[in-house]
Amino acid sequence: MTYCVGLRLDRGLVFMADTRTNAGVDNVSTFRKMHSWVVPAERFVTILSAGNLATTQAVISLLEERSKAMGERNPSILDQPSMYQIAALVGATLREVIAVHGTAGQKAESFNATLIVGGQVAPGPPRLFLIYPEGNFIEASQDTPFFQIGETKYGRPILVRAFDPAMDFADAVKLLLVSFDSTIKANLSVGLPLDFQVYEADSYRVGVERRIGPGNAYFAELSEGWGEALRRAFASLPPFDLHG
Amino acid sequence: MTYCVGLRLDRGLVFMADTRTNAGVDNVSTFRKMHSWVVPAERFVTILSAGNLATTQAVISLLEERSKAMGERNPSILDQPSMYQIAALVGATLREVIAVHGTAGQKAESFNATLIVGGQVAPGPPRLFLIYPEGNFIEASQDTPFFQIGETKYGRPILVRAFDPAMDFADAVKLLLVSFDSTIKANLSVGLPLDFQVYEADSYRVGVERRIGPGNAYFAELSEGWGEALRRAFASLPPFDLHG
Repeated sequence: MTYCVGLRLDRGLVFMADTRTNAGVDNVSTFRKMHSWVVPAERFVTILSAGNLATTQAVISLLEERSKAMGERNPSILDQPSMYQIAALVGATLREVIAVHGTAGQKAESFNATLIVGGQVAPGPPRLFLIYPEGNFIEASQDTPFFQIGETKYGRPILVRAFDPAMDFADAVKLLLVSFDSTIKANLSVGLPLDFQVYEADSYRVGVERRIGPGNAYFAELSEGWGEALRRAFASLPPFDLHG
Repeated sequence: MTYCVGLRLDRGLVFMADTRTNAGVDNVSTFRKMHSWVVPAERFVTILSAGNLATTQAVISLLEERSKAMGERNPSILDQPSMYQIAALVGATLREVIAVHGTAGQKAESFNATLIVGGQVAPGPPRLFLIYPEGNFIEASQDTPFFQIGETKYGRPILVRAFDPAMDFADAVKLLLVSFDSTIKANLSVGLPLDFQVYEADSYRVGVERRIGPGNAYFAELSEGWGEALRRAFASLPPFDLHG
């Protein structure tokens, strides 16, 4: 499995992804699930991927190739006039890859994948999309200002309760780390290191980008502190009257 | 779906189950998912059920019938000499029901069900089992002192962090209510009212048993207070240094 989140804040976008992939429990590897494209002063695009690794790598490779090979520049992620068109191109590429793998040779259990695509193409605003295996997609809105893909359930309650679109980037990263910590504690298929990336609106470049590894002191402090803080929060609630 | 939890505490057992069942989103009903059998001074058994409602009702009915009809008293849940034998009987009944439904007539998507069985048969200690659709089962231990069935993921992080086998019954019910609240907030298929039941070791009778409905003032206070407490807990953690 995998766990990835994209947040749409008032001041920009924040992305986080784990790096664990596994085929069974004894074939565990680390792969980057976050990929970015930048054209200074014009566009910034980041894709997070969850699902079949062969599928997501093929999608990223196709999008990469198409953005580099001169003879085959169209359709290219760098040529699309808007984030909406980029989401449509990514969706079409995903559907194409799944269709090719899904019909050729042996049937695997699933070639499915789900993607989060976020970014900004001038002069539009930053936008965030969730792309389904069928190639269609939905966009984040005021009502649904974040998307999760992969192993989404364990880390959702804290996002639902503590997310605020007005929060600053440092708080957003802290919130994501808590959400990922809850997931990692509960599910073996999601693991460190975690990649995160901050995109400030109208900057058209990758902002702070870092990898949080197993030795990260802040993450260890957060993980331990969160357990303690949760127990304090629980104790602070009024007691239940068993005989009331 | 469904959400049920059974806890094994030092002082006994606590069970909680929601009551929502749905076939699609417009066929939503309330059904009790917690059933108990008592023989004073000798045995106490409670079963929680998740999965196909026809299957779980058939299992409960078979166990009920067998415990009542004189001509067919064997095998009966009231005749088994130990909790282990009761778990084995419940597992065999579950497997039998699934096998009959699964091979007769039209194939439905799934007739599967999962059960939690807890209780005590004198002179043994209280025991707690998780029964799989295949009829086999596992028992709660020091290392795994609780079982969840149904929609388990949203409510798991708080159980993992705050459960303590030494906690009293009131705290255990409060913990379960927080876990259920997180699940209800995130998943439409789990809903109020909630049934809970407390079993005090060596009492051989149902302890406090109550239904928490939509108008319950304590649950409303807990639900709102938990959101606030989570946000305070989050704020109490050290800030992330984005440029560190």
